[in-house]
Amino acid sequence: MSEFTTYMDLALTEARAAAHRGETPVGAVIVQDGCVLAMAGNRTRELSDPSAHAEMLVIREACRLMSSERLPDMDLYVTLEPCPMCAATISAARIRRVYYGAPDPKSGGVEQGPRIFSHPQCHHKPEVYAGIGEEESAELLRDFFATRR
Amino acid sequence: MSEFTTYMDLALTEARAAAHRGETPVGAVIVQDGCVLAMAGNRTRELSDPSAHAEMLVIREACRLMSSERLPDMDLYVTLEPCPMCAATISAARIRRVYYGAPDPKSGGVEQGPRIFSHPQCHHKPEVYAGIGEEESAELLRDFFATRR
Repeated sequence: MSEFTTYMDLALTEARAAAHRGETPVGAVIVQDGCVLAMAGNRTRELSDPSAHAEMLVIREACRLMSSERLPDMDLYVTLEPCPMCAATISAARIRRVYYGAPDPKSGGVEQGPRIFSHPQCHHKPEVYAGIGEEESAELLRDFFATRR
Repeated sequence: MSEFTTYMDLALTEARAAAHRGETPVGAVIVQDGCVLAMAGNRTRELSDPSAHAEMLVIREACRLMSSERLPDMDLYVTLEPCPMCAATISAARIRRVYYGAPDPKSGGVEQGPRIFSHPQCHHKPEVYAGIGEEESAELLRDFFATRR
């Protein structure tokens, strides 16, 4: 099992915990030099905060821990393709690499929709690796929304 | 003086206060039924948080006050064209109307770059009114960056 799978497994654990709390099951982890610096799952409902996506929470926590607005030597693992808000924040925070699980045709902002990293105005484009843990991530989301409809 | 100018004047006051704190001078106000619910200026440096733009701070505060992720009857006044992160959050929060001052050719996400509200994936497009208080907003930004270079 590669290190990438291990970190994504942690993100998937956060996604499962989010589902258990009634939140959309998405989880994220920030890694620096092989160490996990922050982990989170979605908390938009709990916090009444539309910006409390897993990616935003780990970026904000890592920035707080580092006392810096920028995280140029950090990698982000997230179970779902980031939305435009999160992709733009990843860019603002100068995250080095983004590994994500399932694509999000409905609300994704990396490979579809506004394609945040592909515009000339994008000040920083991280390396992006998709499809890690895709099956498990997609299944979590399917199960979650199946029980809600 | 119209009500729009009055609200934008409050946003400009927040922008001036932000400059005084060494932050990029952008300010925002959220209005519901003619009442100001939240006001803020940028605090990215102070909070070491790349997401602490004026718009994000007022949206999060208004959501907290309303215990809701959505603000469908609220209007946002902001001195500068929202960036892609803020525009996507405005959409997620279902803000009704956005009034902004100066355009932002470098980092804007409404009328340029990823044009967040103009994609089929955009789940909510607010009414957008640009150019209110544009001169003062642009002057504040010019003065701020002139003293930094």
